[in-house]
Amino acid sequence: MAAKALASAPVRVTMIDRMNYHLFQPLLYQVATATLSPADIATPIRSTLRDQANTNVLLGDVTGVDRAARHVTLDDGREVPYDYLIVATGARHAYFGHDDWEPVAPGLKKIDDATEIRRRILLAFEKAETEDDEARRRALLTFVIVGGGPTGVEMAGAIIELAKKALLQDFRHIDPASSRVVLIEAGPRILPAFPQTLSSFAQKSLERMGVEVLLGKPATNCTRDGVEREGAWIPARTIIWAAGVEASPAAKWLGVESDRAGRVPVNGNLNLAGDEPIFVIGDTAAAAWKEGALVPGIAPAAKQMGAYAAQAIRARLKDATPAPFRYRHQGNLATIGRKSAVIDFGRVRVTGFIAWLLWGAAHIYFLIGFRNRLMVMLHWLWAYVTFRQGVRLITGSTRLP
Amino acid sequence: MAAKALASAPVRVTMIDRMNYHLFQPLLYQVATATLSPADIATPIRSTLRDQANTNVLLGDVTGVDRAARHVTLDDGREVPYDYLIVATGARHAYFGHDDWEPVAPGLKKIDDATEIRRRILLAFEKAETEDDEARRRALLTFVIVGGGPTGVEMAGAIIELAKKALLQDFRHIDPASSRVVLIEAGPRILPAFPQTLSSFAQKSLERMGVEVLLGKPATNCTRDGVEREGAWIPARTIIWAAGVEASPAAKWLGVESDRAGRVPVNGNLNLAGDEPIFVIGDTAAAAWKEGALVPGIAPAAKQMGAYAAQAIRARLKDATPAPFRYRHQGNLATIGRKSAVIDFGRVRVTGFIAWLLWGAAHIYFLIGFRNRLMVMLHWLWAYVTFRQGVRLITGSTRLP
Repeated sequence: MAAKALASAPVRVTMIDRMNYHLFQPLLYQVATATLSPADIATPIRSTLRDQANTNVLLGDVTGVDRAARHVTLDDGREVPYDYLIVATGARHAYFGHDDWEPVAPGLKKIDDATEIRRRILLAFEKAETEDDEARRRALLTFVIVGGGPTGVEMAGAIIELAKKALLQDFRHIDPASSRVVLIEAGPRILPAFPQTLSSFAQKSLERMGVEVLLGKPATNCTRDGVEREGAWIPARTIIWAAGVEASPAAKWLGVESDRAGRVPVNGNLNLAGDEPIFVIGDTAAAAWKEGALVPGIAPAAKQMGAYAAQAIRARLKDATPAPFRYRHQGNLATIGRKSAVIDFGRVRVTGFIAWLLWGAAHIYFLIGFRNRLMVMLHWLWAYVTFRQGVRLITGSTRLP
Repeated sequence: MAAKALASAPVRVTMIDRMNYHLFQPLLYQVATATLSPADIATPIRSTLRDQANTNVLLGDVTGVDRAARHVTLDDGREVPYDYLIVATGARHAYFGHDDWEPVAPGLKKIDDATEIRRRILLAFEKAETEDDEARRRALLTFVIVGGGPTGVEMAGAIIELAKKALLQDFRHIDPASSRVVLIEAGPRILPAFPQTLSSFAQKSLERMGVEVLLGKPATNCTRDGVEREGAWIPARTIIWAAGVEASPAAKWLGVESDRAGRVPVNGNLNLAGDEPIFVIGDTAAAAWKEGALVPGIAPAAKQMGAYAAQAIRARLKDATPAPFRYRHQGNLATIGRKSAVIDFGRVRVTGFIAWLLWGAAHIYFLIGFRNRLMVMLHWLWAYVTFRQGVRLITGSTRLP
């Protein structure tokens, strides 16, 4: 958003990313649950910016920022000088001091995460099909999702539908419909960022689909054999981590103190305090919103911040003082399976099938590129009509961790 | 083909594969060159066979066959008994005693091969964009394909088009159109299985597109920096191996002598000599055809052999003697870029755009599943109209070997 908004500005733009594509994260869970292919939700950054003559795209991994010398350092030693720097390096999943859980409970932030989770889910059914031991088979057919935010809710809904619909007639020795899908949320309700009524609606919808929703206690241990939840043990061979995120290491690069979630505190102009050339935006920024709350870590907020940073730079180039950033909250939305969703527009709340249609339309609309929009629509139409999932590939190893 | 042809036979079928999908190999090069996603050319084996009540699908890696006890051994120790065994384990690429070339010159047989080759090709352009040294940049923009069979020809055509069309406006410091694509064939002409006139046509077409075709001398060394060809050195950071295949280790499992290419000699019924319950078919079999030639290692031949094995088993179940296998050669075809192909129907030969349309129609037709057919058609249409490649993802590491 920032790079695009600088297209016609009298500046040279260098876009650095460690991937060669822009990923549309809101649909990543559908890659993890075999509905979409990675390329359906990823567009090459070069293609997106190819017509901006003032813009250079650089594949590179940032390792530091020299604020005195004003350059960014990459892992191969290259130094990229800047007059203005926009840091929009996002967030990754966090284990709150339990990094040893990561191998057994992968999170969902990158394409490689999604194909790995897809591999584990599909492989669990395959291994269950040939497992003679009843207890081990039950553990293979148990899927625990830790974290009841939008990602956790979406994953739980998608996995139970995979089990109960798409795979239904494909096995001979197991009944995929007997799978257990367990959603663990430490707080008192799922979707805590939503109003209570929508949380309840989502919980009832999930439970009607067959998901077990466990509230009020956190996961206290994750191993390759299951999840412990304050004494209670849930045997499960597939665990998915959706319980928390932590900002990218931007605070470390910039040499500033971060907040508890690793975010960089920014002022009203989204600048680093005392360093006007540096903007920090998106999930990496801790920007004030209202009543002590921060701007939420969702895509629409990140896009507004990107557009603002570009606008502020344009203003400064004209020696004008940019007005402070004002976040316009458009709402929260989360989908629950193939025909229900919840949307909170503030005063208006929508649930069920209409919400799901709105959710789908919004996600198609915000996907980048005509090709991806068309392909995602077709994949959805196909999955909706046939109840089948099209991308059921186990790639990489065929062993469980 | 064999499993499907046994759908209504009074037998229990167990299909063992180490992957959970059937791969349509003829289009794998389009995954490697960023036109198609893996899922577009792969269908879950369970889905394909879900409606066959007599058929069981087993994800497993075969490590041996006990012909006396009549069972197949899997890598986890499981033993699968059989009355009839059909071995259709295909071929993999072979380096003829130079296995050390594999890391620098990957071949194209599996989905993971294709995404790895895609990664290397796209990454080479990215690295070239930021390379200041002229010689190293030239090496990054040089792509050598070793082997002038259909796969080599298809890869060469697809890479030169990626460079000259799809990537054309995406870089600022390099001109992708200046890339060198070199096709090395040890024999006197490319497409040696085709008539001379079609080989010449294909060579001229490739050369017109900008591919350098080097004939008559083999590659004598492959390193991460280039290819040696009898004294001459071609600096190149991307090498693709399309020079030879070797059958799967079925001969070892069965305890029989293979031919030089690792294939298992079979009799007129595609049985192991002296072991009627065992059929060996497809690329793993050395089956006589005509004038001392073997049935060629192409998909239509493998499918005929699969159908024959099922038919022979049905006959034996009725105590009848199956007629020997007769291969019906329908032709050879290879495509050269986005609007040309060569087809050899025996008496009739077709070249150019008409051949390309026939090639496309045949490949869409033989793809399994309506969904895949539709998706591949749309991807092709999109790529044809826009000259863009849709699946330009670098997944995994962003370092070159």
